[in-house]
Amino acid sequence: MKKVLLVPDSFKGTMSSMEFCEVVRDVIQLHYPNTVVISLPVADGGEGSVDSFIFALGGEKITISAKGPYMEDMEAFYGLIEGGSTAVIEMAVCAGLPLVGENLHPEKTTTYGVGQLMADATARGCKKIIMGLGGSCTNDFGTGAASALGVRFTDSDGKEFIPVGESLSKISHIDKSGLLPSLQGVEITAMCDIDNPLHGENGAAYVFAPQKGANSKMVEFLDGQLRSASETVRKEFGINVSEIPGAGAAGGMGGGMIAFLGAKLRPGIEVVLDTIRFDELLNGADLIISGEGRLDTQSLHGKVVVGVARRAKKQGIPLVAIVGDVGDDIDGVYDEGVSAVFSINRVALPISEARKRSKSDLKHTVDNLMKFVSAVVK
Amino acid sequence: MKKVLLVPDSFKGTMSSMEFCEVVRDVIQLHYPNTVVISLPVADGGEGSVDSFIFALGGEKITISAKGPYMEDMEAFYGLIEGGSTAVIEMAVCAGLPLVGENLHPEKTTTYGVGQLMADATARGCKKIIMGLGGSCTNDFGTGAASALGVRFTDSDGKEFIPVGESLSKISHIDKSGLLPSLQGVEITAMCDIDNPLHGENGAAYVFAPQKGANSKMVEFLDGQLRSASETVRKEFGINVSEIPGAGAAGGMGGGMIAFLGAKLRPGIEVVLDTIRFDELLNGADLIISGEGRLDTQSLHGKVVVGVARRAKKQGIPLVAIVGDVGDDIDGVYDEGVSAVFSINRVALPISEARKRSKSDLKHTVDNLMKFVSAVVK
Repeated sequence: MKKVLLVPDSFKGTMSSMEFCEVVRDVIQLHYPNTVVISLPVADGGEGSVDSFIFALGGEKITISAKGPYMEDMEAFYGLIEGGSTAVIEMAVCAGLPLVGENLHPEKTTTYGVGQLMADATARGCKKIIMGLGGSCTNDFGTGAASALGVRFTDSDGKEFIPVGESLSKISHIDKSGLLPSLQGVEITAMCDIDNPLHGENGAAYVFAPQKGANSKMVEFLDGQLRSASETVRKEFGINVSEIPGAGAAGGMGGGMIAFLGAKLRPGIEVVLDTIRFDELLNGADLIISGEGRLDTQSLHGKVVVGVARRAKKQGIPLVAIVGDVGDDIDGVYDEGVSAVFSINRVALPISEARKRSKSDLKHTVDNLMKFVSAVVK
Repeated sequence: MKKVLLVPDSFKGTMSSMEFCEVVRDVIQLHYPNTVVISLPVADGGEGSVDSFIFALGGEKITISAKGPYMEDMEAFYGLIEGGSTAVIEMAVCAGLPLVGENLHPEKTTTYGVGQLMADATARGCKKIIMGLGGSCTNDFGTGAASALGVRFTDSDGKEFIPVGESLSKISHIDKSGLLPSLQGVEITAMCDIDNPLHGENGAAYVFAPQKGANSKMVEFLDGQLRSASETVRKEFGINVSEIPGAGAAGGMGGGMIAFLGAKLRPGIEVVLDTIRFDELLNGADLIISGEGRLDTQSLHGKVVVGVARRAKKQGIPLVAIVGDVGDDIDGVYDEGVSAVFSINRVALPISEARKRSKSDLKHTVDNLMKFVSAVVK
């Protein structure tokens, strides 16, 4: 083996994708000291996305002051990669659930700070923004972020305001003429791995607001607010974001980024792989090792392992998935380009116990796969 | 791959070695229809040994009437292989724990029936007897079996009797002159995987009699009986069986077979591998797959996987162990010739749950190993 690529997702709650790469790299280099091992730990839009991109491509982390979910001042960050021409932003940095603790009010929280991060990036000359959606405590349809970038929302009295989840229906007019000049020509891509529409029973409020603290009455209310804002957008811009798959991501941030900022939504893993120029990295690779906490039928829907496998398959490069649990009906993943799947479980133990030993179990599994290769390939 | 050998132990309480072979063979032939897969399920002396030998070499099962642990009549069996020249006997057939249920009295039970099986085999012209020790409910030093074969035990009054665990100390004289003529020149090998001496704190009574129903007082008593009989043997034949490793196997049957029948004790897996001419079967093999319920440091002491691996190593053939659990400190097994170890666990579950899915988990594991081979070897 001359070249091996490591492209894992995290084992959520157990092991980061970075840790996975470290363990696997060390084992491979023990067996094959001359093999080039390229680590590409993935965080497909979620926490750690900035670090992952910087790890894979180099770059710098920019720290600035920005607004938090309740408009409080906070220290926030984003990443600059590709010589500063591309920014990577995790929306959860300024609008994430962990920031509000138990003070859960999706009707009152804002994505304003996320817009500030984007503004800062474009002020530094960024021409591309990659936004990681997900993990938000907000339901503001991205109006907060849009406000920070110069979009003006006014009520029926013509009074400008920054909408939040509970005041979306008060938007009477939307004016994009004040959008920051620095945003001109900037390509904005949101990493989005869900298909939920903006509103309705599969929409942002019904599916995600409960985990943000909304009771059933509040869910219904928030859904109405999103529906109303969507109608306003349709009237103002002639765009119907209601039915766009993914518009309901991150409290409607998906839909808002399309409506107000002309963003595109794409599966996180696709954005990651394109950005790191994965297809070029595949050149000359003998093996790809991917992994995630659990491989199952869900994995077919744009998750990391299958996303990487599809690229691998096109170039005929074997991909081994090393995972925590292996679900029952996984035949589909082989069709997508996964050559083989191995679980790291080496002792029959419940997950509460297994979790504690995941790193050494991973090490054991990869070690034995390498031993196996050495023995049978010779 | 042209030729693959399957040589597993059973996954005790979960899957027989025969079932293991069936599952693995089917998977391999799905991937490599032209590969010759030779199944050699092992039962190294324990239950299923007769079936295993007959499965591997062909042969017939002989059913006869013989005595059970309490001298009751019962239907018993043994195997004839190699054209009838070799008999395979499981001592547990006539003296096994399951036969007595809760009627556990190691001081009263006999191995007489085991001797009858041997007698029947030699009467049919057998020149070799392979005896599987283990699983016994007896503690009679093999005197019952010896009696059935013509050895005469007499007490201090010169009265002949068939000793049991509680009457070993009454043996005053032992006369081997009446041994069946058919036993002349018969090579007797006992499969024995333990090192315990006949008596003392590591002896048959102290270590094994408790599971046969002896309380601590009884253990002490039985130990004294074995010590006494051993002393008698020393006086009569000048043989000290006390310290021979394995003499304490099967209630002293190991020692008795040496003393009364000139048997040899050998590790079960060695006997099996020699008998099935494993070294010849290895010729041209590309891969060996072995397995057992748990691979750990204990596995280094003559168990199946390591026993097979040692042979494989000599001929440089890769061996993969596919097991239930993998213990922590198993580095030693690689030195013995195990190329790689894989656990069949694919979901983090306690053993009570994992056990129920062992066959499908085994299938999954082998399937993915074969997929892996196809993908990386090409």
